[in-house]
Amino acid sequence: MDALAELVESLPAGVVVTDGDRIEKYRWDRSQDPHAGTPLAVVRAEDAGQVQTAVRWAARHDLPVVPRGAGTGLSGGASAVDGGLVLTLERMTAIEVDPVCQVAVVEPGALNKDVKAAAAKHGLWYPPDPSSYEICSIGGNVATNAGGLCCVKYGVTTDYVLGLDVVLADGTLVTLGGTRIKDVAGLSLLKLFVGSEGTLGVVTRAIMRLVPAQVVGATLVAALPTMTAAAEAVVAIRRSLRPSMLELMDQPSIRAVEAHRPMGLDTSAGALLVAQSDAPGSACTAEVEAMSAACRAAGAGEVFVTTDADEGELFVQARRMVIPAVEVLGELMLEDVGVPVPRLPELVDAVARIAERHDLLIPVVAHAGDGNTHPLIVVPRGDDAAKLRALAAFEEIMHAAIALDGTITGEHGVGRTKKSALPAQLGEDVMALTRRVKDALDPQGILNPGAVL
Amino acid sequence: MDALAELVESLPAGVVVTDGDRIEKYRWDRSQDPHAGTPLAVVRAEDAGQVQTAVRWAARHDLPVVPRGAGTGLSGGASAVDGGLVLTLERMTAIEVDPVCQVAVVEPGALNKDVKAAAAKHGLWYPPDPSSYEICSIGGNVATNAGGLCCVKYGVTTDYVLGLDVVLADGTLVTLGGTRIKDVAGLSLLKLFVGSEGTLGVVTRAIMRLVPAQVVGATLVAALPTMTAAAEAVVAIRRSLRPSMLELMDQPSIRAVEAHRPMGLDTSAGALLVAQSDAPGSACTAEVEAMSAACRAAGAGEVFVTTDADEGELFVQARRMVIPAVEVLGELMLEDVGVPVPRLPELVDAVARIAERHDLLIPVVAHAGDGNTHPLIVVPRGDDAAKLRALAAFEEIMHAAIALDGTITGEHGVGRTKKSALPAQLGEDVMALTRRVKDALDPQGILNPGAVL
Ligand SMILES: Cc1cc2nc3c(=O)[nH]c(=O)nc-3n(C[C@H](O)[C@H](O)[C@H](O)COP(=O)(O)OP(=O)(O)OC[C@H]3O[C@@H](n4cnc5c(N)ncnc54)[C@H](O)[C@@H]3O)c2cc1C
Ligand SMILES: Cc1cc2nc3c(=O)[nH]c(=O)nc-3n(C[C@H](O)[C@H](O)[C@H](O)COP(=O)(O)OP(=O)(O)OC[C@H]3O[C@@H](n4cnc5c(N)ncnc54)[C@H](O)[C@@H]3O)c2cc1C
Repeated sequence: MDALAELVESLPAGVVVTDGDRIEKYRWDRSQDPHAGTPLAVVRAEDAGQVQTAVRWAARHDLPVVPRGAGTGLSGGASAVDGGLVLTLERMTAIEVDPVCQVAVVEPGALNKDVKAAAAKHGLWYPPDPSSYEICSIGGNVATNAGGLCCVKYGVTTDYVLGLDVVLADGTLVTLGGTRIKDVAGLSLLKLFVGSEGTLGVVTRAIMRLVPAQVVGATLVAALPTMTAAAEAVVAIRRSLRPSMLELMDQPSIRAVEAHRPMGLDTSAGALLVAQSDAPGSACTAEVEAMSAACRAAGAGEVFVTTDADEGELFVQARRMVIPAVEVLGELMLEDVGVPVPRLPELVDAVARIAERHDLLIPVVAHAGDGNTHPLIVVPRGDDAAKLRALAAFEEIMHAAIALDGTITGEHGVGRTKKSALPAQLGEDVMALTRRVKDALDPQGILNPGAVL
Repeated sequence: MDALAELVESLPAGVVVTDGDRIEKYRWDRSQDPHAGTPLAVVRAEDAGQVQTAVRWAARHDLPVVPRGAGTGLSGGASAVDGGLVLTLERMTAIEVDPVCQVAVVEPGALNKDVKAAAAKHGLWYPPDPSSYEICSIGGNVATNAGGLCCVKYGVTTDYVLGLDVVLADGTLVTLGGTRIKDVAGLSLLKLFVGSEGTLGVVTRAIMRLVPAQVVGATLVAALPTMTAAAEAVVAIRRSLRPSMLELMDQPSIRAVEAHRPMGLDTSAGALLVAQSDAPGSACTAEVEAMSAACRAAGAGEVFVTTDADEGELFVQARRMVIPAVEVLGELMLEDVGVPVPRLPELVDAVARIAERHDLLIPVVAHAGDGNTHPLIVVPRGDDAAKLRALAAFEEIMHAAIALDGTITGEHGVGRTKKSALPAQLGEDVMALTRRVKDALDPQGILNPGAVL
């Protein structure tokens, strides 16, 4: 019996997909990595046992396994590998909320938005909110340590992971952590798996911490003359306040949104800051007033404040709309570089210079409060020369971030598209250490080979 | 030249201590582990280069190295090993605060309280606050992932570690993370070193995140009839509120404190809940009122609330005084078990049964909001039979926690005194995984051998 037949036989009908047409959509994530391969088969696992079966099979035959959540990744972390398996967790979507322990016990394929909704039914909140929260999975969030808009106050995915079930490279299932909040027994293996992008194990269950629901009290939108001025405002705000959102759009982003869906944004502004406060009661007004003052001190002309939730949400939507709006202008290569917050203006300048040098449009949006920016490299459709220039710009932006004490990826992960720049950021010794950990956990190198390392 | 002479020669005068008397105090931490060995020498490193020299020397001669901070550990993690080195970081105490990046760049020997003070000068705050904050080092805090009183709202040490310099088992110094807030480039090695108790590397520098200073607005003290009632109040409070402290003392603890320093605590109460709110402005009053209501609903008689900071601090001191007060009654064996919050009453019951069975006094204090308790096993001084019973109780309490889905250590670490129970909590597969990671990073097994594993 050949290997594939053995796999099909060992799993229930319908779990293993080998049909060329159906496989196609599992080859790529949202990065549209041109080097994505063609897998031998896609395993659509229904439970952890099937994940174990598939991984054991792959280990036996020394074949690659690419774990896959919802495929919304932006770094090619879930690109298929030729002749290997894609192991998709999309069918494992159960969510159980324990309101007394304040945790959600979640299968990896559950969407972020569904975890939020399940928590909300109990007056609880699962904070991490990638912009893709309606379409990305918790397993993918854990595997990439996803960020989002509220991270500036509430932290990233790893801060909410209390427990994980992980299928290791040899098929063993380990349970790490649990429903207790504090636990220092043994090495922090739990945290090691968070952000490991499918290279160390397959997450089959996650226990996520929930907190009491918060109410956003006020939204502020400030028009700043330049990105530098806006970054100054951000530094000043962070110094004494804890906004629950602190986002930034540059002029090209503002204009793209306004062109895409006119809503009266100030297209002459150099930058738009969108901030929120969820400080309780009257403290919210005080916090927003202090943010206003910081914006004015940094040179803001108009500062608009609203306590109307729907109106506030409109501005947050404007921020979220930057990507689709810019996408109208061409194909996007989405960058994800970060720097220490005070170095934001330098990074923005560096991006502008790179854009000019390569004759490209590169609007920038940023989770500014965390120093994390998304330069959006626009490639006019069908322009192959521009595509090449964009690839060069993509690399240069990463190196510009590194030169500013920054990172090549603040939240999207290294995957395959950012791998080339990783050694420049981490250095030889950390790369060697990474390799040692990878080899210890996956000696055959079958888990997501080609990603990260 | 013998090995020791080689070490002395390779380091500046005064760094290597071999004098028996001076070595003595480096043999133990606060757990007074009876199995602590006698080291060959103590290296009192002044910088990372000297740490590298010492570790390289130990690797060459295949000798154990026990990293040591301030020696306040409660699990024998820093117990000396016969014939090895104690590598103390106590002389590396530099602290630099960068108020714009909002980080403290800290040498490992700096005391927690000094980091707090340095941050405060800039209106910033380093939250983690182990009760030992005046005497423990940041390196020790990182190595144990220390908790404290404000964790219930603000998280534990790992949540504040942005960067680490670590000397590996072969003497290589790696720099992980940095001053950027969000960074997912590569595996989460940074987090792996946090809580590794000196078994994977020696921390020589830490970059700790700072946040704007918070003001405690109000303190609440509630007398509950039983620990079960108190735990009910805790669950209810956590459900919708975010107190900045939520601590619990049982009756024997209350009585010990009142006997030690009379301050009018209600010694007839079954439990005392001490809670604080740092919600801003009028939200603070609302939060404390809601906490009061939860306490009354759980059967509280007296609920005392104060917005006077000094008066509030008195009650927090009462809570902090439990350990010294109980210490008057005999030698202490300090437990550190945790459970999911709603299971606190079951854990407290189990401890009471164990105390009765072994005819021991075991007061319990708890970081109740996190489900983390410290049963304080009292051994009448000089009573060897009681000591043996206490050792048995110590083990039984850990197993009781495991049976309740809990942990043998919520914040103190496994060290040497809790190691026997670790496999029962983690299971064989996780132990094997732990061993693989340890072997990958320290193949000779020279870093803190006998701790954790
Ligand atoms: C419009 C848009 C906006 C976005 N905004 C954000 C944002 O604000 N913040 C942010 O962080 N990201 C953002 N992203 C990126 C993406 O949504 C996140 O990286 C998300 O976490 C990926 O989840 P997924 O389920 O789609 O994972 P996939 O794309 O399927 O996989 C991502 C990586 O995780 C691995 N993986 C997936 N599931 C598992 C598992 N169960 N076990 C082990 N490994 C697994 C894969 O191998 C791959 O390496 C955005 C994407 C889009 C398209
Ligand atoms: C009265 C009292 C109250 C306490 N309250 C709390 C509390 O509320 N919360 C809490 O978490 N703990 C508490 N502790 C325990 C203790 O203070 C903490 O574990 C603290 O983090 C230890 O720091 P240290 O510098 O004393 O480390 P040490 O005791 O010297 O060492 C602790 C461990 O860390 C390792 N280590 C130390 N420095 C380094 C380094 N630079 N690199 C690598 N490894 C290193 C050691 O090898 C050892 O395994 C308390 C202790 C006392 C005595």
